[in-house]
Amino acid sequence: MSHQFAQTPLTRVRRAALRADYDRETVHAILDSAYVCHIAFAVDGQPHCIPTAHWRIGDTLHIHGSNGSRLLRALAEGAAASVCVSHVDGLVLARSAFHHSMNYRSAMIYGRFEPVVDEAEKMASLVAFMEKVSPARWPTVRPPNSKEMAATFMLAMPIVEAVAKLRSGPPIDDEADMDWPVWAGVMPLETRFGEPIAAVATPTVAV
Amino acid sequence: MSHQFAQTPLTRVRRAALRADYDRETVHAILDSAYVCHIAFAVDGQPHCIPTAHWRIGDTLHIHGSNGSRLLRALAEGAAASVCVSHVDGLVLARSAFHHSMNYRSAMIYGRFEPVVDEAEKMASLVAFMEKVSPARWPTVRPPNSKEMAATFMLAMPIVEAVAKLRSGPPIDDEADMDWPVWAGVMPLETRFGEPIAAVATPTVAV
Repeated sequence: MSHQFAQTPLTRVRRAALRADYDRETVHAILDSAYVCHIAFAVDGQPHCIPTAHWRIGDTLHIHGSNGSRLLRALAEGAAASVCVSHVDGLVLARSAFHHSMNYRSAMIYGRFEPVVDEAEKMASLVAFMEKVSPARWPTVRPPNSKEMAATFMLAMPIVEAVAKLRSGPPIDDEADMDWPVWAGVMPLETRFGEPIAAVATPTVAV
Repeated sequence: MSHQFAQTPLTRVRRAALRADYDRETVHAILDSAYVCHIAFAVDGQPHCIPTAHWRIGDTLHIHGSNGSRLLRALAEGAAASVCVSHVDGLVLARSAFHHSMNYRSAMIYGRFEPVVDEAEKMASLVAFMEKVSPARWPTVRPPNSKEMAATFMLAMPIVEAVAKLRSGPPIDDEADMDWPVWAGVMPLETRFGEPIAAVATPTVAV
């Protein structure tokens, strides 16, 4: 399998082409390090932008939701979709207003989802999701029963038409502005876990 | 002006309706505390999901980009759009696999963008953007010249059809699972600034 995604009319980056990256590992890493993606698709000509948890199994992106979701059903029927995952890594403060920027990593996938219907595949997908969210937790929790499995709608999209866009590093100012008397640099943004908050209340009062 | 956005067929939350919030301040706060939104729209029937920096001026959402961007131009021509901003605040680990969840805040806007063409309005919008990214920085940087202003394409969307969705708090397990022998609770996710990284190199070597 190629280490690079093929450039297509949809994924060819026309602007700022130097920031485009078709490397499979780069795209996968961006997908794996985020918990939520945004999915664009249209229903009856109306675009929707839906945030939802995602996870990856090999070259396939998985999402899930409620059986009753009208929008998930539209996706399951094969609506053309565009999935994006973005990380903002820092604010880039330049000497000139114009050259301010952001450091970021984003991955974009174009494709269509298909429902995951096979029971074993559904279960394997849920296990993979848990492994991403909390490694080694799956064997410790109360497993899903058949009613819960039936209520869970799962979709998968092959990651074939994909591209990453990235910016990192310091501001890039015009030579003429280098002596402008202002601080320039990067304000890094970091996402990290805080202290775990144990659940102590019963469901009745915890809502 | 009402403190609540009107519910419309597009913004009425059908699933998990208790997590929907039409409060103007809630929507604004979610928009303001993120640097990047995702915009869904279609060009020739093909959906795109574009991450881009956004900022708010009153009841208007602003974005900008390059004059040469094909996708921005499609938005400027009045393509129907859906804008989403999402924060993931924590992983919610329940006693049962099924009740795992995430704490999040998201805001969704349906509407259309219009180009900001008036020079004074464009400048005011850039000032507002800088004020969001780095308060009080604007007067200290080299201001945009006419060539840079001409190269900057700005769009604004009225925030009229909008809704927030939120989840917070501990896992909500079934009563029957409360004694399941596993830790349950929330793993909070926090985004914060790291130590500023001063730019020292010249543009020549900083790329």
